[in-house]
Amino acid sequence: MRSFSEECLEACGMLRENARVVSDSLVKANLRGVDSHGVTRLGIYVKRLKMGLVNPNPEVRVVQESPATLLVDGDNGPGQVVGLRALELGLEKVRRGGGVSVGVKHSNHFGTGAYYVQRAVEADVISFAYSNAPPSMAPWGGVEPYVGTNPYAYGVPAGRHEPIIFDMATSVVARGKIILAAKKGELIPEGWAIDKEGRPTTDAQAALEGCVLPFGGPKGYAISLMIDIMSGVLTGAGFGPRVRNLYEDFEDSQNVGAFFHLLDVERFMPVEEFKGRIDRMIDEIKAVRRARGVEEIFVPGEIEHRIEQQRLASGIPLGAETVAELREVGLLCGVELEDFVHES
Amino acid sequence: MRSFSEECLEACGMLRENARVVSDSLVKANLRGVDSHGVTRLGIYVKRLKMGLVNPNPEVRVVQESPATLLVDGDNGPGQVVGLRALELGLEKVRRGGGVSVGVKHSNHFGTGAYYVQRAVEADVISFAYSNAPPSMAPWGGVEPYVGTNPYAYGVPAGRHEPIIFDMATSVVARGKIILAAKKGELIPEGWAIDKEGRPTTDAQAALEGCVLPFGGPKGYAISLMIDIMSGVLTGAGFGPRVRNLYEDFEDSQNVGAFFHLLDVERFMPVEEFKGRIDRMIDEIKAVRRARGVEEIFVPGEIEHRIEQQRLASGIPLGAETVAELREVGLLCGVELEDFVHES
Repeated sequence: MRSFSEECLEACGMLRENARVVSDSLVKANLRGVDSHGVTRLGIYVKRLKMGLVNPNPEVRVVQESPATLLVDGDNGPGQVVGLRALELGLEKVRRGGGVSVGVKHSNHFGTGAYYVQRAVEADVISFAYSNAPPSMAPWGGVEPYVGTNPYAYGVPAGRHEPIIFDMATSVVARGKIILAAKKGELIPEGWAIDKEGRPTTDAQAALEGCVLPFGGPKGYAISLMIDIMSGVLTGAGFGPRVRNLYEDFEDSQNVGAFFHLLDVERFMPVEEFKGRIDRMIDEIKAVRRARGVEEIFVPGEIEHRIEQQRLASGIPLGAETVAELREVGLLCGVELEDFVHES
Repeated sequence: MRSFSEECLEACGMLRENARVVSDSLVKANLRGVDSHGVTRLGIYVKRLKMGLVNPNPEVRVVQESPATLLVDGDNGPGQVVGLRALELGLEKVRRGGGVSVGVKHSNHFGTGAYYVQRAVEADVISFAYSNAPPSMAPWGGVEPYVGTNPYAYGVPAGRHEPIIFDMATSVVARGKIILAAKKGELIPEGWAIDKEGRPTTDAQAALEGCVLPFGGPKGYAISLMIDIMSGVLTGAGFGPRVRNLYEDFEDSQNVGAFFHLLDVERFMPVEEFKGRIDRMIDEIKAVRRARGVEEIFVPGEIEHRIEQQRLASGIPLGAETVAELREVGLLCGVELEDFVHES
């Protein structure tokens, strides 16, 4: 999957090193069970690259710098290429100052936040990563989309245990799940979305014409808003409706913004002591008495890590729909699919 | 109310300047309509001070420092005295480096996060403020408390508009509301809490023996956990059950931790440009089409600001129960209550 995805992206003009980053992000998402952000995104990336809406090989530049901040212009590059470069610039800097905040403008679809915070964790750095996204949720009380399902991720190094990796959308549920339900003519659970009049709905089609709901009601709206402020308003990227839709707007570049906070653990306590404390916390959490029917209590990222171990051993299951998509992408790019896909 | 509260705290050995900070935080909470964090807390503060569990006049010290980080030891002082001093140290530093992360250990009850982020906003600084708290929520799937209803706040300067001030607990609802329902023998809405077997409950007493639920389900649990990691694990403060209960543990000091991220807007764009963009965002949000029955769409902090304007003009309504509490506190401290309270 990696090489197929790389070859497709190279066929769209991306340098090998850039194609490798995007492919790595997609395949890692599939490995972790986050299939919504895996190779199913390859098709739209290829489409936008071919339409000239994304710069395949951006010159990612620092446009403003202070001891603890960086503002990075992504030159309309692929989100993962820009994001990873911005993160690396931050990681180079974090040892000197102890903490860095990195703002990113003129980028594209961010991919999973987990991808970035995992990198930071490997360097014993605590990190927060977030990005804005095109409008799909209304401000609380409204019925028109204004903020995106803006993802929020954090990563924390551990010792004996796997690192804590949290990555969420600020919506109750990914919009993709509602699209899927509408395609299949299925109802959606109450609490996922409102129709265009602001009424709770279980009709997937009505939900698509309305808005996805933020997780946790008005609190989730406020967190999504914070992400748009940091990633969009503060960086000079798009915010609110100025962030263009990946799937619907083929006139403009997306102008996605992103934001990273990085923190050097050593500036607070020796990293081994910190990891020991995190391990103790994880041990204690996993030992908490469980509700009836619950077999195990998890810390963020633990389930995804287990799926990754399974999938590394036995492969990534792809649905027929994704295989068909990939076949089409391969045709467009002149890349053979057959050699690694075995339909299940 | 300010002078009454100050005099009570001075009677417990606090210096005037420290008493003033705590009183200011309490009265500001009442003014903003957040009565759960207002003068109703005075009684427990006085009790803990009189028992010697809180150091009335701490020597707040920086124990570790780098260009973009500070680790502050609160010397077991009142949360607001320690927190405000830590914030001020951060604000002095933020102009030089562009961003500062401040960890705080050995502190006590944090008060409202809004109190701190409002100060930062006055200095045109974007801020995040959070604190851990004694366990009251179970990790997702568990039935024993491990994390607190850890508050999370952020503040963003605006131009024509009031600043955006967001301040939430990471629980669906404050535990205090369930205590109140239990006292009155009222039912609580489903979704607020689970009983000690992990079953959803509407019985307030059963809820108190169980756990408050995090806002937004497992996502809220993960955010509460992040706050405990940053405020507790990383700073060297208590975390999980090591944070002592304000109302129940009279053996130990609380060892609350707190964390601030401060960011100098100017390192990203001219502050006036930023404020213009925030104003535009607020205008756009308020103009979003509203759901039926919704009269106005708000940004975080706007409702509280309006209540503050009303209460500054017409006074703070205090319930009979709070007045009785205050009367008792006054008796304990030898301070007359009558001169400012008019029972409604």
